[in-house]
Amino acid sequence: MNSFGRLFRISIFGESHGKSVGISIDGCPSGISLCAEDFLPDLSRRKSGAAGTTPRVEKDLPIILSGVFNNKTTGAPLTIIFENQNTKSNDYLNLYDTPRPGHADFVAARKFKGFADYTGGGHFSGRITLGLVAAGVVAKKIIGDIRINSEIKELGGRTDFEQVVQEAVNNHDSIGGIIEVKATGLPIGLGEPFFDSVEAVISHLIFSIPAIKAIEFGSGFAAAKMKGSEHNDNFIAKDGKTETNNAAGINGGITNGNDIVFRIAVKPTSSIGKVQHTMNMNTNEMTDLEVVGRHDACIALRVPVVAEAVTAIALADLSLIYKGIHK
Amino acid sequence: MNSFGRLFRISIFGESHGKSVGISIDGCPSGISLCAEDFLPDLSRRKSGAAGTTPRVEKDLPIILSGVFNNKTTGAPLTIIFENQNTKSNDYLNLYDTPRPGHADFVAARKFKGFADYTGGGHFSGRITLGLVAAGVVAKKIIGDIRINSEIKELGGRTDFEQVVQEAVNNHDSIGGIIEVKATGLPIGLGEPFFDSVEAVISHLIFSIPAIKAIEFGSGFAAAKMKGSEHNDNFIAKDGKTETNNAAGINGGITNGNDIVFRIAVKPTSSIGKVQHTMNMNTNEMTDLEVVGRHDACIALRVPVVAEAVTAIALADLSLIYKGIHK
Amino acid sequence: MNSFGRLFRISIFGESHGKSVGISIDGCPSGISLCAEDFLPDLSRRKSGAAGTTPRVEKDLPIILSGVFNNKTTGAPLTIIFENQNTKSNDYLNLYDTPRPGHADFVAARKFKGFADYTGGGHFSGRITLGLVAAGVVAKKIIGDIRINSEIKELGGRTDFEQVVQEAVNNHDSIGGIIEVKATGLPIGLGEPFFDSVEAVISHLIFSIPAIKAIEFGSGFAAAKMKGSEHNDNFIAKDGKTETNNAAGINGGITNGNDIVFRIAVKPTSSIGKVQHTMNMNTNEMTDLEVVGRHDACIALRVPVVAEAVTAIALADLSLIYKGIHK
Amino acid sequence: MNSFGRLFRISIFGESHGKSVGISIDGCPSGISLCAEDFLPDLSRRKSGAAGTTPRVEKDLPIILSGVFNNKTTGAPLTIIFENQNTKSNDYLNLYDTPRPGHADFVAARKFKGFADYTGGGHFSGRITLGLVAAGVVAKKIIGDIRINSEIKELGGRTDFEQVVQEAVNNHDSIGGIIEVKATGLPIGLGEPFFDSVEAVISHLIFSIPAIKAIEFGSGFAAAKMKGSEHNDNFIAKDGKTETNNAAGINGGITNGNDIVFRIAVKPTSSIGKVQHTMNMNTNEMTDLEVVGRHDACIALRVPVVAEAVTAIALADLSLIYKGIHK
Repeated sequence: MNSFGRLFRISIFGESHGKSVGISIDGCPSGISLCAEDFLPDLSRRKSGAAGTTPRVEKDLPIILSGVFNNKTTGAPLTIIFENQNTKSNDYLNLYDTPRPGHADFVAARKFKGFADYTGGGHFSGRITLGLVAAGVVAKKIIGDIRINSEIKELGGRTDFEQVVQEAVNNHDSIGGIIEVKATGLPIGLGEPFFDSVEAVISHLIFSIPAIKAIEFGSGFAAAKMKGSEHNDNFIAKDGKTETNNAAGINGGITNGNDIVFRIAVKPTSSIGKVQHTMNMNTNEMTDLEVVGRHDACIALRVPVVAEAVTAIALADLSLIYKGIHK
Repeated sequence: MNSFGRLFRISIFGESHGKSVGISIDGCPSGISLCAEDFLPDLSRRKSGAAGTTPRVEKDLPIILSGVFNNKTTGAPLTIIFENQNTKSNDYLNLYDTPRPGHADFVAARKFKGFADYTGGGHFSGRITLGLVAAGVVAKKIIGDIRINSEIKELGGRTDFEQVVQEAVNNHDSIGGIIEVKATGLPIGLGEPFFDSVEAVISHLIFSIPAIKAIEFGSGFAAAKMKGSEHNDNFIAKDGKTETNNAAGINGGITNGNDIVFRIAVKPTSSIGKVQHTMNMNTNEMTDLEVVGRHDACIALRVPVVAEAVTAIALADLSLIYKGIHK
Repeated sequence: MNSFGRLFRISIFGESHGKSVGISIDGCPSGISLCAEDFLPDLSRRKSGAAGTTPRVEKDLPIILSGVFNNKTTGAPLTIIFENQNTKSNDYLNLYDTPRPGHADFVAARKFKGFADYTGGGHFSGRITLGLVAAGVVAKKIIGDIRINSEIKELGGRTDFEQVVQEAVNNHDSIGGIIEVKATGLPIGLGEPFFDSVEAVISHLIFSIPAIKAIEFGSGFAAAKMKGSEHNDNFIAKDGKTETNNAAGINGGITNGNDIVFRIAVKPTSSIGKVQHTMNMNTNEMTDLEVVGRHDACIALRVPVVAEAVTAIALADLSLIYKGIHK
Repeated sequence: MNSFGRLFRISIFGESHGKSVGISIDGCPSGISLCAEDFLPDLSRRKSGAAGTTPRVEKDLPIILSGVFNNKTTGAPLTIIFENQNTKSNDYLNLYDTPRPGHADFVAARKFKGFADYTGGGHFSGRITLGLVAAGVVAKKIIGDIRINSEIKELGGRTDFEQVVQEAVNNHDSIGGIIEVKATGLPIGLGEPFFDSVEAVISHLIFSIPAIKAIEFGSGFAAAKMKGSEHNDNFIAKDGKTETNNAAGINGGITNGNDIVFRIAVKPTSSIGKVQHTMNMNTNEMTDLEVVGRHDACIALRVPVVAEAVTAIALADLSLIYKGIHK
């Protein structure tokens, strides 16, 4: 559902073309410095504007509704919203009847019995991830010495990023990509058996981001081809430092002090300018569809900061739990 | 932590060499036929005995402590335990000080401050998955027409399964593998935005299974190399049936009626008969380790039924939530 | 923490003198008619203005940020906020150091290490209950034929309500009261053993309302003086109708189809115009305090609609759970 | 449902006449001394045997299935069961059709569609509280310097306890009572706004105990008749010590360091030897019922240790949450 976390709890809301999107963050300790400016660097990394991203440009200025007093967190829930201003809902009128292949239009119509807000993808829009980025900014302030970085490893199967994106734009097509996230400076002991392993909590949040199809930690799928004698990470120091890091810094679901590393696959954006086959849910006939509206040719360009954010959220929650039970 | 699920809730417990392992299942509707025999087929698929699996053989007879009356579920929590009988804890005495590379020994000692039960891996043992298989049997009875199947796709990077396993055994080494899970007969509409997408809930549970390093849904990592025009699944029928199934039956985190398909990577078992480098946590000196004890050379052989079980558990919970809110 | 509910989940936020207070409601089925006007009747019942209520008057117009499209719920989270406009924070400057007896000032300062927003009580203000009333309006639309009513039974120990309130106002003092809530039209079977009995869930929410000191269901404290032969409610019809209703319509924590009835005690408002003894948390000296600021002499006057609201919220959640698991 | 708690999580299971009753406790820190003997003092306080309690006597020896190793908690879930040995299910055969007034028989039959285990009350039996007492023993070890005591204040409206009980036994009737629970040695700051106030969490658990009809904290229902100038607890020391304790040690839902005090009303046991009116759910005719079986004439005699236990459970959970977020 729309909330997640045990102690550091986030509740997300909003639709792409509604009044606003936002998030409420519970379990944030008091006394943390926080003001609207703190959100801007990460928010700007998520922004569109570059080639391959949607021509819809929003200011994305965070409005802090609650939880901050004199520029410090109060310990009460932090609620942050972003107003939707640049909406062109007319672009979406035909989508009510003809769902876009690869998009949530069809399932949203059926699950919510025709009442879902379909403009701009409604609650299924990538725009909802604004709240995640905001919560990530707060989470990063909670996890102490842990630093999280993400990097695009390939787009459309290639590493000449600018060119491959431009080709997709030129072809009215879209491309996906692979992003790697790395967390460093980790303490030993985060992650809770049996169901809240670090991988379980991170993957839960990662798969909440639209367009993610896969995740692999450390050696990942390559592990399936390795021998134990190759895969095991020998210890080389008493603090748990290992020679290799196939385990991605996680044993038995718990951080061992080495870096957490994982890669995720982002699918090509579903909305493309080419003709596709779909149905008319009203007339019950099959039909063709040309998607109008403003879209990203390569949403993967905007995912890194979101992936960092949810990693920070996962680690913030696991850190508070660790402190609560085990310290 | 050790419980999971919103309506269909499981709470798992036990240690490899303790009195017993088990699970308590809450939220199971009343009136479902259930007796100990119902568990045996899936339990036997999880059992060791074949080449490449541990020589520790347990009877694994389920004891139903609560929740069943006259061979029907009562609506009260179902608690099922399995006694540990064939334990050889002496094999593990040296592990208290010298953690096995790739295993949870080190993090368990640190997280639980030296109090974790280290015999047989304690709570971090694959033996704990017995409870998952039991809950899976119950979950399969709840999800109606949905059928779940799993299949080993490769072991140690190869498809001549018997031979590659035998080689690993002969070399006192271990191998991993890739398993594919498929669910068919799905209704439209399971999965809850924003955080309980089908992928999020399934991956959460999959990464709770020891030894899993990666998961990909449908096109998975290949999606990152595809164009939108290739990846989008065109609709070919009014019930939502699509021409291709790159989406793995899931759009926007919600089932679209097509099959759910995902693949997981199982790493090679950490416990191997070869000498490895580790440390002595007591003397604080680096040392070599030869793992004694009984282990699987290829734990991937025993994972399919566990992966099916957690898929069923995820879909059972999402089905009850769907019924509660949306029907 | 600041969210509650299993399927019908509410997340509350805001401070008395912050930008706004509000609530996000998850798990609301799609297709329910809803617009801002629907909230006004219940909101106006919570409003101040009458004798004995605070002179702070707010418009309390609900702003629906998300979850409604074309005047119907979409199935996505409903977020509703209320702007704070009539704030006089200067009234509260001295409270930062000198906590009001009976109020949360002292514990808020200590728990949140001096960072809590102390103006107007911050997050501990009765103003936060606006969100509950809003969620109650939605909940009432979910629970079908169930009707909930509340009634003031006594104020300051008396039943001549207008006069006793006026006396308190005249004396710069405050009074409490007793409120009775009744729910009718109940189905059989709501409430989940073991921990989510109807009484448990209702009381959890009732004690989240500021100023509540006690709750009793049906016979309540009088039950302790009765004999079983007097207390047991004999069945008089096959649908479960009972002769008496000492059980308050609940057996074993589950609704039996008879009316739910409970009474709650509201303490006299802590903020009074009389001199009281407190300490100065800055100088660490004991001191006297005269509370300035605008307050209710009898907050009990405004509690009935809030008590109804949380009862509706509790029954909405239990109804969805019942439908999910047992139907 | 059958689990409760955010960090200190309990999952309860069992039926009165099933194989066993028990509880699984998650979130218990490692390294706490624990063995079966530790449970015996509290378990013996819950036992029957005295006048006014059921003639069914069980050994109630705790069997620790998991979570303890070398007499210390391991950090993994603690599972504790109690075997049912002295069962006389034949006594209950007629109850399948004719529900006892005041008991859960009717609602259990309807909610669980005839599949509930009706022998001995099944999952609705007071016997299930054994698990609570066991969890309470563990919780008491977690809450440090906090001490919890409970006391019977009156039985059947009187204070000559032995005599009033004997009269009830002689008359084949039953009586209720009032119990007071007091917790001392509390830190400042336990309890989480908005929904997890100390009162909310304690009352949630208290109303999970069968037969409880009411709870009042501190001044309780008397507060409704008091003036603010009488009710407010003036501070008399800088550590928050107050002159009176009408607030029961709780302001704004948060402990202020003074004692927590609350009283609960226990109804007279429903099962009595007198003829009562009920229906036959099979023939759909109204009928008379004489309850056979072994019952407590005054279950209130056995409630104090259960009330202590759930108070300890509530405070243990709030303590871990406090440590996790606020320390």
